[in-house]
Amino acid sequence: MDVPVSFLDQLFNERVLHDTGVDGLYARSALFEDVISRFEAFALSFGKDEISESMVFPPGMPMPDFETSGYMKNFPQLAGTVHAFCGHDRDHMGLLQCMAAGEDWTKGQKATDVALTPAACYPLYPILARRGMLPEGGAYVALQSYCFRHEPSKDPARMQMFRQREYVRVGSAKQTMAFRETWKQRGSEMMELLQLPHEVEVANDPFFGRAGKIMASGQREQELKFELLVPVNSTSKPTACMSFNYHMDNFGQAWNILQADGSPAHTACVGFGLERIALALFRHHGFDPDAWPEGVRKVLWG
Amino acid sequence: MDVPVSFLDQLFNERVLHDTGVDGLYARSALFEDVISRFEAFALSFGKDEISESMVFPPGMPMPDFETSGYMKNFPQLAGTVHAFCGHDRDHMGLLQCMAAGEDWTKGQKATDVALTPAACYPLYPILARRGMLPEGGAYVALQSYCFRHEPSKDPARMQMFRQREYVRVGSAKQTMAFRETWKQRGSEMMELLQLPHEVEVANDPFFGRAGKIMASGQREQELKFELLVPVNSTSKPTACMSFNYHMDNFGQAWNILQADGSPAHTACVGFGLERIALALFRHHGFDPDAWPEGVRKVLWG
Repeated sequence: MDVPVSFLDQLFNERVLHDTGVDGLYARSALFEDVISRFEAFALSFGKDEISESMVFPPGMPMPDFETSGYMKNFPQLAGTVHAFCGHDRDHMGLLQCMAAGEDWTKGQKATDVALTPAACYPLYPILARRGMLPEGGAYVALQSYCFRHEPSKDPARMQMFRQREYVRVGSAKQTMAFRETWKQRGSEMMELLQLPHEVEVANDPFFGRAGKIMASGQREQELKFELLVPVNSTSKPTACMSFNYHMDNFGQAWNILQADGSPAHTACVGFGLERIALALFRHHGFDPDAWPEGVRKVLWG
Repeated sequence: MDVPVSFLDQLFNERVLHDTGVDGLYARSALFEDVISRFEAFALSFGKDEISESMVFPPGMPMPDFETSGYMKNFPQLAGTVHAFCGHDRDHMGLLQCMAAGEDWTKGQKATDVALTPAACYPLYPILARRGMLPEGGAYVALQSYCFRHEPSKDPARMQMFRQREYVRVGSAKQTMAFRETWKQRGSEMMELLQLPHEVEVANDPFFGRAGKIMASGQREQELKFELLVPVNSTSKPTACMSFNYHMDNFGQAWNILQADGSPAHTACVGFGLERIALALFRHHGFDPDAWPEGVRKVLWG
């Protein structure tokens, strides 16, 4: 009896992705990257007159800002901190002996000032706060970042290192909620144009532990998070390829971002999981973009 | 008396880069990213018929491969390992108490399977090794990756997180050394076209500690590394914007990459420091690319 080949193995066989031996950590082919670039250009064609600024972040953010974000309270299991060797010659000899003996040499590594970015918009907030009060119209930023989440998986749509493109709206409750509604609609329009099956649903973040269950149901009750789901690795458990989030004034308060009237800013973001969207396209339209539906090709390659 | 504004502060003032509060960790503007993309396209127009494959890596690589690379032996001070919280509810409560008390909460973080990539070509070698013996002509790979080096600095050309684009040649001693000679010439041609002052010199890597001094002088004596230097932050200490490296069969042996005749492969790479080249362009041609010399604009924007 034939064992069906997993989507991940198909991606390896087609050399769209390359196995590294660690689940969720893959090299990307030039083709895969081209699909991502094309999707990003497509996404940026929506709402481009509304954007006040565009930024790209490196994969890490300042440790103090990471601490301020509250991520270790809510999602400690997913976070990655960057550690380094900080010793001298003698410590180094000890470290090498430890490695040679096959022992755990990483215990001596010390935390640096850098944490891996868990969500693409986190590095933005302290930058905005540092600039002082927001202008009257608030801020509307397009950004992109590599993110890290410590959740090794055989599902190619659940990578440990992946990119998010986001639009972030910072301003009043009214501005941010209107922004989120607009993008919920635009997200669906984008998926129509890409001819991908999809649905938008209320969702919750994967809060940690027992207390996290209460957080998750509170988030659902208040409809703070919606996800646009597309079947990627599984038809029964579709994958969140976009999310539409309203943070109320949580981040405004945490980082002291002030509206023009001096009150804490509200924030909302729409996030596109770039690897997930590329994988959805390969899954539904095949491994050869030259053979993708004419309409999809036109949207992406013009 | 006027204090001259540092190049880093100029970049912040012009909003080409954005300060995060951590030296060497900066948000990039859309303009900065566009210059990098244009340079990458320009670089890929050289030698494009020679490339056998193109890849892009995430910012991290498998810990076992990182260990195999020998990086902790030679450059332990620069490496970054990724650590995560691996406890349960009770440990989490302890962690949050520790954070609230302003104590060091990072001691409980445990090393994951991921190390930050220190040099863009490292993740390639184990992928090639896994495929079995090289074909007769060897391999010629174009790749790109974010890299991490733990060396906080006020010199914007010395970032902690930055991208390298590389060409890597894997094959015989003859193939790899010829490759490196070709690229030393091409590198200078590219800088001529970009109208950047430059010189190519023998160089060494920043090997650690006392033993490292011997390694460094050995590397120079054998002329294993050349750098193409451009004044970026300082005219007296120009910055390596490209490097041309011959690794002999060190990596072939470490990762067991075999030539078609069964002997360990030799490797060579040419690396472009993408942020450094963008910074060099801003430094020499000004902060407004519309006002860059006609020839440079033509080369980058066509």
